[in-house]
Amino acid sequence: MSEINAADLTARLIRCPSVTPKDEGALDTLQDLLSEAGFDCTRVNRGDVGNLFARWGPKGHVRTFGFNGHTDVVPIGDAGAWTADPFGAEVREGIMYGRGATDMKSGVAAFAAAAVDMVQNSPPGGSIILTITGDEEGDAIDGTTALLDYMDRKGEKMSVCLVGEPTCPNEMGDMMKIGRRGSMTAYFTFTGVQGHSAYPHRAKNPLPAMARLMDQLSSHVLDEGTAHFDASTLAVVTMDTGNPATNVIPAECRATVNIRFNDEHTGAGLTGWMQGMVDQVASDLEIRISMEVKISGESFITPPGPLSDLVASAVTAETGRTPELSTSGGTSDARFVQHHCPVVEFGLVGKTMHQVDENVPVAQIHQLKSIYGRILRDYFT
Amino acid sequence: MSEINAADLTARLIRCPSVTPKDEGALDTLQDLLSEAGFDCTRVNRGDVGNLFARWGPKGHVRTFGFNGHTDVVPIGDAGAWTADPFGAEVREGIMYGRGATDMKSGVAAFAAAAVDMVQNSPPGGSIILTITGDEEGDAIDGTTALLDYMDRKGEKMSVCLVGEPTCPNEMGDMMKIGRRGSMTAYFTFTGVQGHSAYPHRAKNPLPAMARLMDQLSSHVLDEGTAHFDASTLAVVTMDTGNPATNVIPAECRATVNIRFNDEHTGAGLTGWMQGMVDQVASDLEIRISMEVKISGESFITPPGPLSDLVASAVTAETGRTPELSTSGGTSDARFVQHHCPVVEFGLVGKTMHQVDENVPVAQIHQLKSIYGRILRDYFT
Ligand SMILES: [Zn+2]
Ligand SMILES: [Zn+2]
Repeated sequence: MSEINAADLTARLIRCPSVTPKDEGALDTLQDLLSEAGFDCTRVNRGDVGNLFARWGPKGHVRTFGFNGHTDVVPIGDAGAWTADPFGAEVREGIMYGRGATDMKSGVAAFAAAAVDMVQNSPPGGSIILTITGDEEGDAIDGTTALLDYMDRKGEKMSVCLVGEPTCPNEMGDMMKIGRRGSMTAYFTFTGVQGHSAYPHRAKNPLPAMARLMDQLSSHVLDEGTAHFDASTLAVVTMDTGNPATNVIPAECRATVNIRFNDEHTGAGLTGWMQGMVDQVASDLEIRISMEVKISGESFITPPGPLSDLVASAVTAETGRTPELSTSGGTSDARFVQHHCPVVEFGLVGKTMHQVDENVPVAQIHQLKSIYGRILRDYFT
Repeated sequence: MSEINAADLTARLIRCPSVTPKDEGALDTLQDLLSEAGFDCTRVNRGDVGNLFARWGPKGHVRTFGFNGHTDVVPIGDAGAWTADPFGAEVREGIMYGRGATDMKSGVAAFAAAAVDMVQNSPPGGSIILTITGDEEGDAIDGTTALLDYMDRKGEKMSVCLVGEPTCPNEMGDMMKIGRRGSMTAYFTFTGVQGHSAYPHRAKNPLPAMARLMDQLSSHVLDEGTAHFDASTLAVVTMDTGNPATNVIPAECRATVNIRFNDEHTGAGLTGWMQGMVDQVASDLEIRISMEVKISGESFITPPGPLSDLVASAVTAETGRTPELSTSGGTSDARFVQHHCPVVEFGLVGKTMHQVDENVPVAQIHQLKSIYGRILRDYFT
């Protein structure tokens, strides 16, 4: 009974410098391994992005366990600040270094290894689907969405799905995610009439309108949190004019607001709420205000139940910890998967993700593979 | 009885490209003329700026009429947009074109010509002082201030002073200035703690503090105007952050406020008022706010009386118009002269000042000289 070494597989993936949208052999590495083990593999490429769909077992089986992850990574940042080759996978004192070590080549390696071990050593009475994308860290337009579109067209279906992103803030096993807050960004442009600051009655200064609206938006309490979610938050992230002349009233200024919202809100509802405040301020101060809204994802939740129980009990069995069921943090591809099937997220400790000297303890990769393996066994028995 | 042609003198001055702090022969042109006519001339240079002090008649005479003006000009701006050589003084259909045509080489030429005519053709029973600076359009640190410092040291004294800046908004003679509002600029820096916009509780966003303070400042009515002044005005002229990332809460942002204030306020009083609002917002929103204030000039007034009557009646006699006694507009060097003696301002129509194709009707230069000549005659009889 041979087993795949998930740490070795992680190292091989780290050595592919797959900064979005580049792949550099990462998906081939996985496809070779999975094909060898009997997975049906299809490359679902869209735009300049490569994605991999892999299924073991019959299509459309009522018990089909899915894993989702990404092989692309963020840029290395300040190259000179790294103490190890960012694409070298060097191991020092049991710690493996490299871009993607935690986010999330270790996660992909762990679930691929667990899945291959199972189908080779104790084939399950059902199917396993792996969806692995090369576009999670970028615009995420041609990634998991493309894989899900492909699956819809082909009648492929996961019964449940586990996203292998790092989810633990401090210790292995301390948190899993059962949903995410929604995220949206609103871009405001305030237009008045330029003039001399000695004669402000001849001008229409757009800046007081920006100050008023941003004060009102940031003062508002969106909610106090809900059963499974923290309170929604609104952050004014930038306000800009670029007027260097103190004797000139500018014609235009701009502001951007980012909202992370829970299941008490929708992107459309918040857009309507902001539009109402925009209209009021525009009318009170006689300034033209335009608003453009980009909704990155609605909030979603897979309420605590069979899937979260399955994952949590495997985590507890392998780590001794009871994972908190959280909906905190930014967005992930689970926001796409939730339209397809129940989805939760569990992965290792994300402390160094996106940082210089990103690293992972080698033992944690093996532990993660053990957890994923136990989840598969429990699911199919 | 020879007379100086003020239009020719204006043209000679325009042909000196005296963009602050350059002089290019402008002051020499005037000094030659004035010395020739018997004026005592002294160059009062400070920093990289030239200034000219000229007195005809005995020093310290109780009836000493003063003129003040500047020979420096603002840059030409978009050279390609001019239809005439900016330093050519070309005359087309009775209009003379060039940088400084209205602001204020015509004014300087008119009062120099009027003064020379008087001392040569009907010498007055008193003295005439001309103070002409090369630093009004720049920082104005080494200009009229240097001339007044020099006069203090030497015991030179004007009884009254007329500043020859353009003052008429539409028609020759429609306005003179008997004071000016004060001007000050406040620079605010708001400092918080950078963070991720998904976790705003770990950051301290300085933008809501900026929005709140700018809304409060711009909503406040400073006053309703006073006997001789319009209402004070406060203009937020810029608010900036420069944060391109919608998922980042920035650590710092900046705002600038310009205040034009009447005689109900002082720079110190307004500074104290703003500091109080700064302290309140800083404490409410737990953001560090620093404020730096630059007071360009306090408000001042020469109340309607003998000097304004003298100037107004000469304007009416020459133009048929009764000039409005105004305190509107930006600052001028009268803000320095007011500490020395009663001061008012009268000059021609300023519509094209600081613009491309700045120009002056030649007839208006002659009319301005006639007005200044009449003021001198009336003053000394
Ligand atoms: Zn990730
Ligand atoms: Zn001027």
